[in-house]
Amino acid sequence: MNVAIMGFGVVGSGVAEVIASNADHIAKHSRVELRLSHILDIRDFPDSAFAQYMTKDVNDILSDDDTRIVVETMGGVEPAFTFVSACLKKGKHVVSSNKELVAKKGDVLLNLARENNVNFLFEAAVGGGIPIIRPLSLCLAANRVQQIAGILNGTTNFILSKMITDNMDFAAALRLAQEKGYAEKDPTADVEGIDACRKICILASLASGKHVFPDGIYTEGISALTAQDVRDAAKFGCVIKLIARATRLDDARWCLTVSPALVPQDHMLAGVSGVFNACLVRGDMVGDVLMYGQGAGKLATASAVVADVIDCAQHADASKVFGWGEADPAMLADPMTVETKLFVRAETADKAADTAKLNAAWPDCTFADSEDGELVFITPMQPEGALRDTLASFGFADMSVIRVF
Amino acid sequence: MNVAIMGFGVVGSGVAEVIASNADHIAKHSRVELRLSHILDIRDFPDSAFAQYMTKDVNDILSDDDTRIVVETMGGVEPAFTFVSACLKKGKHVVSSNKELVAKKGDVLLNLARENNVNFLFEAAVGGGIPIIRPLSLCLAANRVQQIAGILNGTTNFILSKMITDNMDFAAALRLAQEKGYAEKDPTADVEGIDACRKICILASLASGKHVFPDGIYTEGISALTAQDVRDAAKFGCVIKLIARATRLDDARWCLTVSPALVPQDHMLAGVSGVFNACLVRGDMVGDVLMYGQGAGKLATASAVVADVIDCAQHADASKVFGWGEADPAMLADPMTVETKLFVRAETADKAADTAKLNAAWPDCTFADSEDGELVFITPMQPEGALRDTLASFGFADMSVIRVF
Repeated sequence: MNVAIMGFGVVGSGVAEVIASNADHIAKHSRVELRLSHILDIRDFPDSAFAQYMTKDVNDILSDDDTRIVVETMGGVEPAFTFVSACLKKGKHVVSSNKELVAKKGDVLLNLARENNVNFLFEAAVGGGIPIIRPLSLCLAANRVQQIAGILNGTTNFILSKMITDNMDFAAALRLAQEKGYAEKDPTADVEGIDACRKICILASLASGKHVFPDGIYTEGISALTAQDVRDAAKFGCVIKLIARATRLDDARWCLTVSPALVPQDHMLAGVSGVFNACLVRGDMVGDVLMYGQGAGKLATASAVVADVIDCAQHADASKVFGWGEADPAMLADPMTVETKLFVRAETADKAADTAKLNAAWPDCTFADSEDGELVFITPMQPEGALRDTLASFGFADMSVIRVF
Repeated sequence: MNVAIMGFGVVGSGVAEVIASNADHIAKHSRVELRLSHILDIRDFPDSAFAQYMTKDVNDILSDDDTRIVVETMGGVEPAFTFVSACLKKGKHVVSSNKELVAKKGDVLLNLARENNVNFLFEAAVGGGIPIIRPLSLCLAANRVQQIAGILNGTTNFILSKMITDNMDFAAALRLAQEKGYAEKDPTADVEGIDACRKICILASLASGKHVFPDGIYTEGISALTAQDVRDAAKFGCVIKLIARATRLDDARWCLTVSPALVPQDHMLAGVSGVFNACLVRGDMVGDVLMYGQGAGKLATASAVVADVIDCAQHADASKVFGWGEADPAMLADPMTVETKLFVRAETADKAADTAKLNAAWPDCTFADSEDGELVFITPMQPEGALRDTLASFGFADMSVIRVF
């Protein structure tokens, strides 16, 4: 079965390598023979072992009827969207690792795939090599998914791990991540939670059956976190993680948030350190299930792409029942209406008076030891908007507020 | 799509419940309509909500051409094997949660399924509701699997967790497990590692492509472990877990063992407590991936069965590329030839002299503080047989030996 790759960056070149290294193994175990046919990229790679496959013209792929499977590892919405659409319309299966494309255009592309009786698969778009999409869509198909909560961005998890274990501040941990190649020069998409938001939108779309767009999802990154936040969280037996979360409410609406959150140290998600990712799924029948592993990396991500390619090749003549339908904006709840606890560090001019005020407002507020001039506490469980209004009414000069998981 | 259930025990009745509770959700999300047609059991259930489906005659299922999918939740090899074979020959898809059947007869049944262009699926046979079989066979299909290591038995993990956190001895922890319904009256299959052995054989069969039979696999349970073993393991920063492990050696043979093992406290498997299960898979491309969740339980296990049923219903006219071929006994390596470290607690009449002997034999032997009359140490990494021979030569009056993971 001939396979073309669009985009010869980190993941795309990894896909070529995985196919080259493991084609024999795949032929034996999965009974499909994968052969590269074309690699599309605007750049030149004269010294690459795959130079013979290179093309700059997408029409070489589109017009090749022997190429039934196309891998899209270009990233970004355009021209990926145009190219993927054209492939699907030509009756080619498409496998993508492009979370931005899936999060923003998944409904359109899944529909195009169905119309043309082919598959649009994207296991690698969430959690790199970790099996998440397929377990969620297939293995948990008998469950009503009640919650998905994940550490879905390795860059931020590395930074937070360094802040937790080595007591680094955010800037130093970010510099280290950049030195190690875990963070990009412009780290915005990672550290501000944008990447994690795209991923939780994809998972929420799968779980709810309706497209959830990243625009408008509450997204808070980790760039404002301080080493002091991390130390004070430890006083409550917690670590701070960037949690992307989708919760199905009792009224069947969904609440999505991406934000730092306090996670108890003995929780499975607290043990996920460094560049690793994990995704916790709660089903009404199965309870909690967690998938864990390397959330990024050239070969790990590429191996998830190739697994989708194998799936397409094994069932080349049938479109799988997979994906979701159109968005329904009424399905999304405002996180400010949903109950949570908040962890607060607040500057106080009069600690005793402010403690009394807090206790009066919230008799079950819990305090940690704190230095003079500072209050550290966890609020009771209430709708977040109400908690924040009450907090604002205390008039603290400065305050850092983090959700409790 | 009509579904019959053979065996109305814990899991079988759970399957009926999951279909009854979530049929609407399944129809909407997975686009298949599941309807119960027959439930086979030799017992009477006059008060069951599903009494109308009951039959004692397997021919009611075999002769019903409208029943295309049969669930086998009887347990044991016979009559399950005869009934499942008959269903497959009749062109019915079969979904089983029966690890003994799959471990002992998987090769025959998978072959029968292929011959009859139907599926024989068994996601629930390993790890209850945790997605393991499908991630291993599909999501990691582009990988050469190098190792599988799992906590695959919830009963023993509950007992060990109680020994670790509550300092219980084995007998007390087993009694508690029985009181809570986590252990059976005759706990042999669980505590002696037989259940975990069947499961790792299934996973090794999938990963190697060749049937691995449980007979002859090194299988050591937890009944000989003492509270002192657990306390001494902690001195090395480790907990003791019952680890079922399949390792691909450099010569492409496989080494399988089921035994207690010391796991470092910061390892993901160490954090798996109570009745939870976890399975770690190492692929040559993806690195380490871990799946975690409830390894047993009526509805959790049933939800995995129903996921397989949905898969069969969605692709009712095609046989999936799935499973493994005939066994190849030459593929299995003797664990005694494979390198490991051993944790040892030994009775000593002359601690100084024995310490000197150990240091002479193994300069990189590491010792923990121990009481008079006792030595606690970890050997260097060597083939296990050689380590055990050397240990025997020291002539300790009594000794407990545990593998180091």
